[in-house]
Amino acid sequence: MNAELVFVGTELLLGEILNSNAQYLSQRLAELGIDCYYQVTVGDNAERLAGVLRQALGRADVVITTGGLGPTMDDLTKETVAEVLGLPMQLHEPSLRHIEEVFARLGRPMAENNRKQAMNPAGGLVLENRHGTAPGVAIPIPAGADPPRQAVIVLPGPPREMQPMFEQGAVPFLLRMLGEKATTLVARTLRFVGIGESDLETRIRDLIEAQSDPFIAPYAKLGEVHLRLSTKARTREEGLARIAPVEAAIRQRVGGFCYGVDDRPLEAVVGDRLAERGWTVAVAESCTGGLLAKRLTDVPGSSAYFLAGLVTYSNEAKRALLGVPEETLRAFGAVSDETALAMARGVRERTGCTVGVAITGIAGPGGATAEKPVGTVHIAVEGPKGSWVRRYQFPVRDRDNVRQRSAQEALNRLWRYAMFEPPDFV
Amino acid sequence: MNAELVFVGTELLLGEILNSNAQYLSQRLAELGIDCYYQVTVGDNAERLAGVLRQALGRADVVITTGGLGPTMDDLTKETVAEVLGLPMQLHEPSLRHIEEVFARLGRPMAENNRKQAMNPAGGLVLENRHGTAPGVAIPIPAGADPPRQAVIVLPGPPREMQPMFEQGAVPFLLRMLGEKATTLVARTLRFVGIGESDLETRIRDLIEAQSDPFIAPYAKLGEVHLRLSTKARTREEGLARIAPVEAAIRQRVGGFCYGVDDRPLEAVVGDRLAERGWTVAVAESCTGGLLAKRLTDVPGSSAYFLAGLVTYSNEAKRALLGVPEETLRAFGAVSDETALAMARGVRERTGCTVGVAITGIAGPGGATAEKPVGTVHIAVEGPKGSWVRRYQFPVRDRDNVRQRSAQEALNRLWRYAMFEPPDFV
Repeated sequence: MNAELVFVGTELLLGEILNSNAQYLSQRLAELGIDCYYQVTVGDNAERLAGVLRQALGRADVVITTGGLGPTMDDLTKETVAEVLGLPMQLHEPSLRHIEEVFARLGRPMAENNRKQAMNPAGGLVLENRHGTAPGVAIPIPAGADPPRQAVIVLPGPPREMQPMFEQGAVPFLLRMLGEKATTLVARTLRFVGIGESDLETRIRDLIEAQSDPFIAPYAKLGEVHLRLSTKARTREEGLARIAPVEAAIRQRVGGFCYGVDDRPLEAVVGDRLAERGWTVAVAESCTGGLLAKRLTDVPGSSAYFLAGLVTYSNEAKRALLGVPEETLRAFGAVSDETALAMARGVRERTGCTVGVAITGIAGPGGATAEKPVGTVHIAVEGPKGSWVRRYQFPVRDRDNVRQRSAQEALNRLWRYAMFEPPDFV
Repeated sequence: MNAELVFVGTELLLGEILNSNAQYLSQRLAELGIDCYYQVTVGDNAERLAGVLRQALGRADVVITTGGLGPTMDDLTKETVAEVLGLPMQLHEPSLRHIEEVFARLGRPMAENNRKQAMNPAGGLVLENRHGTAPGVAIPIPAGADPPRQAVIVLPGPPREMQPMFEQGAVPFLLRMLGEKATTLVARTLRFVGIGESDLETRIRDLIEAQSDPFIAPYAKLGEVHLRLSTKARTREEGLARIAPVEAAIRQRVGGFCYGVDDRPLEAVVGDRLAERGWTVAVAESCTGGLLAKRLTDVPGSSAYFLAGLVTYSNEAKRALLGVPEETLRAFGAVSDETALAMARGVRERTGCTVGVAITGIAGPGGATAEKPVGTVHIAVEGPKGSWVRRYQFPVRDRDNVRQRSAQEALNRLWRYAMFEPPDFV
C-alpha cells in the first residue's frame, strides 16, 4: 500500500511556516509499513489543488491532505476533494454542535463562515477535532466500501490538531485498509556517549552488515551517538524479542558507552544514577555560562540531587565564590587543569555536595591565545572516588557549539564517575 | 517568473529529517519576488525523479532541486537532471581539486566514488560548495542563453551547504533571469518586550489597517513580539525610506517597549546597554537553573560585563552562597518577594557587581502548593537605582516554558532597569 501526502497552504509556499507535518506523517506512515513516493505542497488554489489531487489519485492508494480547513474563503480543501471525487457537500450536525460549543466556551460569537467547517464530502467518515473547530474526514473509494480500495484522508494543518486526529481517527482507518498486512514498527534506540560515530560503527560493522532485521541505523548527535534497532512485527512483543539478541551482541562490544535507551536524555540518566547512589551534585562553570546547570535542572525532580551551580565568569568570581587560589590563576591561567580542579574542589567545599563538576575554557570568538585556541576546554570532576581532569580541544564551529559540546562532555564524565570505578571512569 | 522546488531524498519520505530547506527557499523566493506554485518531495529513484522534473519543467520557469549530490550510488540528482535535459555529464576539474583538497585537509583517503561528485551536466554553471564536497550547478535552457529562458538549479541537501550556495551562487543567477523585474525585499523588524501581541496590535491597529506598503506583520514569540515592516523596492535605500515614517509612527505609540531591531536578541541588547553604562551584572537563579546566565553569556564578549551567576537550587545553597537569611526563608518561603530580593542583594554583595538580578519560582511539575501553584515566579533587580521586585503567575504549559518565560522576563526587567528611571523601569 502506498500513500501520497498533499500539503495545502499558501503560507507554506511563502515559507511563513515550517512544514513539520511532513516529517511527522512520513515517519508514522513508514512505521505503519505504508510506502510514500511523492509529497506535494500546493497553495490555496482550487484549480491547482484539484490537479494535484487527480494526479495523486492516479498513483497512490491513499491520499492524505493537511491544511485548508479553516473558516475563510481561502480554505477550500474539502470542497475541492469533493469536487474531484464527484461528491456533494453535506452538513455534519455533530460537527456543527461541536463548533458552536467551542465558541460558547470561548464566550465569542460564532461567525457564519464557521458553519462552513461543519460541511463534509458526503459518504466520508468524519474525524473529530478535539483541539480545534475543523473536523477531518476519511473518504472511502468507492463510496461505502469497507475496507475501501482507495481513500482520501483530509486533516487540518495545525500540528496540535493534526497529530491527535491522525492517531485517533486516521490510523484505525488505515489499519482497516491494510488488513492482514498491518504491521507495527518496533524500535529501540541505544544511546551512546564518549564514543564517536565512526569508532562505534567500526566496532560493530560486522553486526550491522550481517543484520537486516532488525535494521541497525546509527545517528550522530551533538556529543553522542544513537543506534536505532527497528523491525516490523505483528505485535510489540514479537518485535522486541527479535531486537533483544542483537542488542545483547552490541552491548557486549560497546556497552560501556551505552548510557541509556529510547527517549531519556543524558542529563536525566545522570540524575537517575546520582539519585540511586544518594549523591548530590554541584557545578562550577566558566565558558558554558550556566548551560551545564541548566541541563541538569531541565529534569523534573532534579532538586533531589542538584544543589547549586556557580557561573564564575571572571577571575575575581572564581576567587571569591569558589576559592580558586590567586597563585593558581596566575601560574596556570583561568583555562587550565589546575583551575578546573580548584573550581571542582571549591564548589564541593562551598556547597557540601558529593560530587563537584567544573568546566573552564574558551568558547570564542574572543579570548584565545596561541597556546589556548578557541575550543580549549578543561573539565574536572571531584568526589569520593578522587579527582579527575582532562584538557579537550573541541573542533571549532561556533561559540554555541563549543559550549554545547563542553556541557555534554561534562555530563558524560559525571555519568562515568557515578557508574564506574577508577581507572574505568577516566 | 515562477519556480518549482523539488526536494530529493528517501530520508525525507521516511521522515528521518525535517525539511527545513523548504521553508528557507520558499521565504527567499518570495523575497526575490519569484512565485512558487508547487513543491514536490521525491525519493532517490531515477525514474520517479525524472517524471517530477519533466512535470516541473512543463510548468515553471526555474526548477530548483536540493539533495542527492552525495558520493554514493543512491545520489543521482545531477545524472537525472542531465538525462532529462539531454545533456552529457562532464568532469569539472576545479571541483575535483576542491574535493581532493577537502580530503587532504581531513587527512583521509578520497574514495573513488567521491570523484563522481565533480561530474556535472555539460553547459551548466558550477556553483562552488565552500562547506562540503559536492558542487551545485545552474543550467540555463536553452544551453548558453544569457539570460536564459528557463533553468534548473541543483543544490546540495545539508542546509549549511545549501544556504550559502543559494545566496552566493543561485541568487545572482536568478537576478540575471529576473532582469528589470528584479526587486529586493527590504524588511525591518522591530522587537518588543513587556507587551503582549494583542495589546500591541490594539494600540496600532489603525496604523496596520491604513498601511499596505510597507506591510506590517506582527509575530508573537516567547515573551516578546516582533513587528516586521516590509516592502519591495529597487534598492535597499528606497525601501528603507518607505519604512522610516511608518516606523516613526509606531515608535511614537509603543516605543517604550521596543528594545531593538532586526536580528539582535534581547540578551545582546541588554549587554549593549550594560556596557554603555559601564555596569556589571551578576545573577542568582533558582527555578531557571542557569538559563538566565546561559542566555547572558550566549553573547560573544559578555565577559566584559557578566561577572557571575549563582544557581542556588536548595535552601541551603541560597543561605550559604547568597546569604539569604534563614528567617526570610522560614517566614516567607523560598518562592517569595522577600527571598528574591535577598537573592539579588546577596549576589550583588558577593560579586561586587553593579546590578544583581534574581529569579525564584516553581517551574513544576512538582513543588507546587495551593498558594503557590506551578508558574509562580518572583523576579528581583537590585542596583544603583534601588530595588525592584514582582510576583508573576505564568500560564503553565510545561517546565521548559515556565523557565523560558521567567528568564525572558528577567532580561526585560534588567533592560528596563538599565534604560529608564523609576518609576518607568517598573
